[in-house]
Amino acid sequence: MSVTAAQGFVASGVAAGIKREGKDLALVRSVPRATGAAMWTQNRVLAAPVVVSKAHLELAQPQAVVVNSGTANAATGARGEIDALATAAEAARLLGLRAEEVLVLSTGVIGAPLPLDRVRAGLVDAAAALADDGGDDAAAAILTTDTKAKQAVAARDGFTVGGMAKGSGMIHPNLATMLVVLTTDYPLAEGEAIDFLRPAVDASFNSISVDGECSTNDAVVLLSSGASTAARDDDAFAEGLHAVCADLASQIVADGEGATVLAEIAVTGAASEPEAKAIARRIATSPLVKTALFGRDANWGRVLAAAGSAPWNGGYAHLDPSLVTLHYNHTPVLLRGVPQGVEPPVDGATCTIELDLGLGDASATYLTSDLSYDYVRINAEYRS
Amino acid sequence: MSVTAAQGFVASGVAAGIKREGKDLALVRSVPRATGAAMWTQNRVLAAPVVVSKAHLELAQPQAVVVNSGTANAATGARGEIDALATAAEAARLLGLRAEEVLVLSTGVIGAPLPLDRVRAGLVDAAAALADDGGDDAAAAILTTDTKAKQAVAARDGFTVGGMAKGSGMIHPNLATMLVVLTTDYPLAEGEAIDFLRPAVDASFNSISVDGECSTNDAVVLLSSGASTAARDDDAFAEGLHAVCADLASQIVADGEGATVLAEIAVTGAASEPEAKAIARRIATSPLVKTALFGRDANWGRVLAAAGSAPWNGGYAHLDPSLVTLHYNHTPVLLRGVPQGVEPPVDGATCTIELDLGLGDASATYLTSDLSYDYVRINAEYRS
Repeated sequence: MSVTAAQGFVASGVAAGIKREGKDLALVRSVPRATGAAMWTQNRVLAAPVVVSKAHLELAQPQAVVVNSGTANAATGARGEIDALATAAEAARLLGLRAEEVLVLSTGVIGAPLPLDRVRAGLVDAAAALADDGGDDAAAAILTTDTKAKQAVAARDGFTVGGMAKGSGMIHPNLATMLVVLTTDYPLAEGEAIDFLRPAVDASFNSISVDGECSTNDAVVLLSSGASTAARDDDAFAEGLHAVCADLASQIVADGEGATVLAEIAVTGAASEPEAKAIARRIATSPLVKTALFGRDANWGRVLAAAGSAPWNGGYAHLDPSLVTLHYNHTPVLLRGVPQGVEPPVDGATCTIELDLGLGDASATYLTSDLSYDYVRINAEYRS
Repeated sequence: MSVTAAQGFVASGVAAGIKREGKDLALVRSVPRATGAAMWTQNRVLAAPVVVSKAHLELAQPQAVVVNSGTANAATGARGEIDALATAAEAARLLGLRAEEVLVLSTGVIGAPLPLDRVRAGLVDAAAALADDGGDDAAAAILTTDTKAKQAVAARDGFTVGGMAKGSGMIHPNLATMLVVLTTDYPLAEGEAIDFLRPAVDASFNSISVDGECSTNDAVVLLSSGASTAARDDDAFAEGLHAVCADLASQIVADGEGATVLAEIAVTGAASEPEAKAIARRIATSPLVKTALFGRDANWGRVLAAAGSAPWNGGYAHLDPSLVTLHYNHTPVLLRGVPQGVEPPVDGATCTIELDLGLGDASATYLTSDLSYDYVRINAEYRS
């Protein structure tokens, strides 16, 4: 279901031969005239499809999204942008749209060119296959090292939000190799979509980490078909959109490359919100914390060491060790700086790390996964 | 040799039973009255021995250094500081010094208390074993997950600099779990040592990374016995000190936990020095770059993606992809933004990554290692 759960959307996913095997080209379109918005990677190196899609969004409301897996079309020079443009133009021709009404997303190896002939041929198939139950095929076509498709739907009173996501390695705040397409039939006027999208993304996709990497291609796109005829309830829509984003974000972390543990980091009592987030992120991306999670070792000293070295404002975020209280899997291991000499239980597929800094009122949470042998294997062998 | 290579120093290393087996307590002292300086971790969480030693350095010139491995005596509350003080006091008693003339360094698990009885008994043995050829024993006693002792000596015209180091995991700029003791017979007046130490550390230990971690215990200590009677040549001393630091830093990275590749990252053409360093550090700590190094995969796109997301000044360091030239193992893979379609050779135990940003004149280098199965194994099993 996912991107075709809301009224007014059709989608498809086909095998275009960009990857060695399997579906690798997805197409999503709104049948009624749509409005929409997108958020992009903050990496200084932007993939060609990001450059092209950002430009398209400034020219027109998005009506369709093309997603290919297999190559990121990043670090591909001027040719990469021509290829991304040609992809949008061909999709537009097949769908009766203008090129600037089509967004193009890519994921895969950086530095390899897009095989444009295969993409164009695949688009013909994808356009022919568009169907209102095509969400599953689309969600399958955007995967790379993911082990499973990621879809979520929130059906609310009179409207629906659906979404699909891709991302397992390189997952980090600021949209790291993660592609998300969200659709809704909730009616949005031009320019409104971004105001709903930004807070939902900040509280979900920008608060997860698999390996601290930030990709050249990340994107979250929201399309509204406006097909719902129910009365507007903006709070309900914001809640539904957030629920879908949080669900997809959690699926991404749980499917993190080689992940065996899903860990929630909760930082409270921080001096400021940016510091709370910096500390949560630092813990969530610490290789020592993450290998301890993999080893089912409640090595909470590593949590403290990571927290004490969270980059912030040219130095480290405020932390006074004598005020810190730390719960590891709900067991108090440190109370206002004093070790409690207890061994928390750590044998499950989830772990909670709660750090109270005792300094102020600011808080932040982060989802992360462990660092396992399989993470190394997957990423050492990725191109082979 | 190492810390006993310069005239005027004695050292020892004994098994005090802090670790389950092997030497774990080192003692280094200057026989003539010494001058000295130290640099410490920037982590907000300071281990008890760091707190105590920093206070001692403000009160007196350091004459001796005690180093224990097995426990970091960090996150140990008020008791930890009492234990560190008691260690210094007992060493001082045995050596006829004041407590504040003794520095105490610890490395090992965070959160576990120092077994003070064993440390005191060990100090009696260590004091009795002090010898002018005790450098090797001392260097062996400070190791944790290190696979080999790290020692370096620079004999110059009329004076000598020697040093020992410990550190393999948690190695990162700002002195991450790394203990270094440097000795020299070059005569230094009180207060002079820090002026020589700081630039030598910045160019060596603060430009290496194994896993991006920053510990609670890191320290670099320099003691001068002043026993050399040669005429002063500050440039020669600065060069000799830097040579020893660079040698030890390189040994630390080569012995990084699970390391199979020693990689040198050279960033040139940056807009500013801090940005050059931020980009070099970001590449050096990227899990995706490091797993590619392990897989002998010249996946240079990951280098570019890492470079484009180097934290700097609240955002990312300046980088324009169309100006970037990248050499991977001396092979040009990207020339001013244009991929060259070549496959660099990557099968050795070393790798060079040269990134020219084409923006300005600033540059920085960084040494790093790969991320291997063994890194995960060592750190998942560290406490078991």
